Amino acid sequence: MERCIINLGDRSYPIYIGPGLLNQPELLQRHVKGKKVLVVTNTKVAPLYLDRTIAALKHGRFNVEVESVILPDGEKYKDLPTLTQVFDKAIQTHMDRRCTFVALGGGVIGDMCGYAAASYLRGVNFIQIPTTLMAQVDSSVGGKTGVNHPLGKNMIGAFYQPQCVLVDTDTLNTLPDRELASGVAEVIKYGLIRDAKFFEWQEKNLEALLARDPATLAYAVKRSCENKAEVVSLDEREGGVRATLNLGHTFGHAIEAGIGYGGWLHGEAVAAGTVMSADMSLRMGWIDETLFNRALELLKRANLPVSPPDSMNIQTFKSIMAVDKKVADGLLRLILLKGSLGNCVFTGEYDPKALDQTLSAFCKS
Amino acid sequence: MERCIINLGDRSYPIYIGPGLLNQPELLQRHVKGKKVLVVTNTKVAPLYLDRTIAALKHGRFNVEVESVILPDGEKYKDLPTLTQVFDKAIQTHMDRRCTFVALGGGVIGDMCGYAAASYLRGVNFIQIPTTLMAQVDSSVGGKTGVNHPLGKNMIGAFYQPQCVLVDTDTLNTLPDRELASGVAEVIKYGLIRDAKFFEWQEKNLEALLARDPATLAYAVKRSCENKAEVVSLDEREGGVRATLNLGHTFGHAIEAGIGYGGWLHGEAVAAGTVMSADMSLRMGWIDETLFNRALELLKRANLPVSPPDSMNIQTFKSIMAVDKKVADGLLRLILLKGSLGNCVFTGEYDPKALDQTLSAFCKS
Repeated sequence: MERCIINLGDRSYPIYIGPGLLNQPELLQRHVKGKKVLVVTNTKVAPLYLDRTIAALKHGRFNVEVESVILPDGEKYKDLPTLTQVFDKAIQTHMDRRCTFVALGGGVIGDMCGYAAASYLRGVNFIQIPTTLMAQVDSSVGGKTGVNHPLGKNMIGAFYQPQCVLVDTDTLNTLPDRELASGVAEVIKYGLIRDAKFFEWQEKNLEALLARDPATLAYAVKRSCENKAEVVSLDEREGGVRATLNLGHTFGHAIEAGIGYGGWLHGEAVAAGTVMSADMSLRMGWIDETLFNRALELLKRANLPVSPPDSMNIQTFKSIMAVDKKVADGLLRLILLKGSLGNCVFTGEYDPKALDQTLSAFCKS
Repeated sequence: MERCIINLGDRSYPIYIGPGLLNQPELLQRHVKGKKVLVVTNTKVAPLYLDRTIAALKHGRFNVEVESVILPDGEKYKDLPTLTQVFDKAIQTHMDRRCTFVALGGGVIGDMCGYAAASYLRGVNFIQIPTTLMAQVDSSVGGKTGVNHPLGKNMIGAFYQPQCVLVDTDTLNTLPDRELASGVAEVIKYGLIRDAKFFEWQEKNLEALLARDPATLAYAVKRSCENKAEVVSLDEREGGVRATLNLGHTFGHAIEAGIGYGGWLHGEAVAAGTVMSADMSLRMGWIDETLFNRALELLKRANLPVSPPDSMNIQTFKSIMAVDKKVADGLLRLILLKGSLGNCVFTGEYDPKALDQTLSAFCKS
């Protein structure tokens, strides 16, 4: 088992990474304080892992009461009305301030369960058990929680850290190929923004990763978590460097909201958004064509889309990006690649014409 | 103008108290960082103070954009669907991370606007401008924010501190008598739980307070804020002593939820709850009859109810109190008076028979 620590003073916590961790009850139990647990999961994950999770939580602990709430699956249910189902269940089952919420699922479940935990009784403990590659390498780590608004992604939420993240890499064995590729988009992101060696490793090992070779998967998850842990420890509330984790996300979020949540997977939208960001960087001369092509090729090899869907037009991009969380005093700030592989900037000081040219190049109207 | 500081390290903030403060734009403006402000208010307060608030925010600042959202008035609208109206407006008007939300109204507006500010883009600045006595002496100070759930009061929310609280005591001139009395219930609470001298002052000055004598009102607000500031600075997240501010609130919340939010004002329910808490303390021999009678008399003189409505029965009390936020591992903890005037305890170690006897004495069935 690998262990990685998010250093945030009295809010620090471990990420446990390895195969079969759901069969090690003591890992979870050491982070459960009270006598009541609410597992939040969805219709896809519940049949696969809910029983095992409940068994791990209750193993040898006869006075711990475990309840569960099973939400509908998919990004389109990441909203306030669905969140209310978690509150309803928590109140009906008398979850108290010492209870623990457990997120069992992908990024949507983790974000919703985390925000529910942040808000229920003004804050209760929670634990992340991510079961998708996307959640394991990115969304379960770092305390960003929330739900979507019809007009913008993750517009409502909280920074709220879990007690621990438990990554059982065996859960990836049941993940559909498309979901696996979606997670790979975030793995590639770490390489592009800050870890050239990791990117080079990916160029060598992508096929083994997609074929779910256990050691390759475990390394990709661990190295991604280490990257994320470093960034989050430096800048928990995204005052600066943390924003760089959003490479491709401004374009990507616009795609997700523009075509309707759930039309594309998050990582698919991020992949197309990453190519658009790289294209803009190239137009401004901030990166060379070789780097652009390496990014493009790796995303393609991962079977990820490298341009937005035909239904996205310039106006849709612009209107949704205008409400992006990174807008400050009317100016949209973007994460753009700059310099050699592994370097990027978070800035509002870019040539707006380059943005227009990129949008024109990737949109039919 | 009086000034009182909530000491919470880098989340410290001032409370400004005095007449005519809404006419001093620099007080508000020094706490507004970005160029966009969203005033959250309701249909009762907007006609009275919205224009003046907007004028104060914009005075001499031509590049500050002020938007507003006017919610329906009353505790029954303190819910997630109504909160959504704030998010809708914020997104439609492109409020960004540097924006400031301003709560202009009573406790319901302050709690909702604060929770919206805590959640919007995972947290933006906010300012409290409380316009009711209840909000000025209690709810606007200390960072408790949230909304009700049909099954329990303030079940969903956040601890989230404002940039400042601006108390213009002139706004109390337009407050209905019943609302004024509701706030007095919390003023009396401070005397009972921790400030015997303040309680004695209230016994001498209650009629002047109810007649809205400006100096008497100003002193009551200031002394209440000082008490709350001390407690909140010691225990921001209610690990211990802060819970004592909830004297009468466990019974009171049960009344509010039991008869339907908005049936009684919050302070009315708290007043009846305070008498029930004092009754229970008396039954256990924790206080003497003289103290019980002094509390009862002062609440009566304030024209506050001193027993729950006839529709509340023992079962309703019990089932709602079972989901109170102060339940821990199945045990309901209560704030009870103990000792001489100005002393109380927050405890689960009370005689459950005394609780049953109090419920029987105050309920018809």
